[in-house]
Amino acid sequence: MTTILGVDPGLTRLGVGIITKGAGRSVSLVHVDVYRTAITDRTEERLGALSRALGELMDQYTPDLVAVERVFAQHNLRTVMGTAQVSGVVLALANARGIAVSMRTPSEVKAAVTGQGRATKNQVGTMVQRILGLDSIPQPADAADALALAITEAWRGVAPAASPTAGETPAQQAWREAEARAKRPKLAP
Amino acid sequence: MTTILGVDPGLTRLGVGIITKGAGRSVSLVHVDVYRTAITDRTEERLGALSRALGELMDQYTPDLVAVERVFAQHNLRTVMGTAQVSGVVLALANARGIAVSMRTPSEVKAAVTGQGRATKNQVGTMVQRILGLDSIPQPADAADALALAITEAWRGVAPAASPTAGETPAQQAWREAEARAKRPKLAP
Repeated sequence: MTTILGVDPGLTRLGVGIITKGAGRSVSLVHVDVYRTAITDRTEERLGALSRALGELMDQYTPDLVAVERVFAQHNLRTVMGTAQVSGVVLALANARGIAVSMRTPSEVKAAVTGQGRATKNQVGTMVQRILGLDSIPQPADAADALALAITEAWRGVAPAASPTAGETPAQQAWREAEARAKRPKLAP
Repeated sequence: MTTILGVDPGLTRLGVGIITKGAGRSVSLVHVDVYRTAITDRTEERLGALSRALGELMDQYTPDLVAVERVFAQHNLRTVMGTAQVSGVVLALANARGIAVSMRTPSEVKAAVTGQGRATKNQVGTMVQRILGLDSIPQPADAADALALAITEAWRGVAPAASPTAGETPAQQAWREAEARAKRPKLAP
């Protein structure tokens, strides 16, 4: 059983999601949370608080792998710098504990979980809910994104089960199955 | 006596400079070094190695203040992301030890140390050498920049000594004095 920690880094909201991976595509939720820091606090205090929370989380759940969103300089440069600072802290904490790290882009994660790289936040959340068999979509989106990162890592290199639609990715298969379930006519009472 | 650690963050080369601040503008070199990591190593290994080295340095010298260069998204976005990751690690390490942090822009540092915000690397290095009374300019530039950050922090709010050129900044005064020394005619043997 492999334990995987997904981290969606951010100074204001940092999503963490822990799953265990069983045989094939089987994954189970262990823990999900979002750490928040106040925008009015000093940057070093925010980073220090996130570092302590993440270090304790890693020590408590001892993941075998940490999957972190790869940060790119995009539109909002101010936000990106803070996100990069947080990702640096996450990587250093994992390395200090000898935990392997994987970095994945948002489009890789969307493609792995929903079958297409330009999926909406809601599509990602819906698939995370269905894959892990949750009662509702994890909120906020940072929590769902952290779990999606962990699922992406869990499914890496796992061949899809043989099926009439062999050739589709595990995500495409899960999506198709989920859609089929959603379309299934309700039984009469 | 206040001990100040200056850090010029970077993944490939990280400069550290430690000084003590006495009365007025008096500052003394304690330690200077540059930590390097290989561009071929994984990012988490590089950040982990820098984190360990910086943590040990802070524990050994127990600085009262850490002055870190403020990172901006400039030309080379790829480099900037790595630099931001390192700065995040530095800030979290300092905060974990209860050490106060100050962030300063390159132009603030240049202005404080040389008297003008657009000084060259060589002017900054020359002033660092003269202010600390060193035999040569600290090399590479990351080492001199780290010391310049620490000096900037040490001189913060320190009034220049009364002099015929009262009104000049401590840096301008030091620069003028250094130039005067350099122009002093050599004694005949």
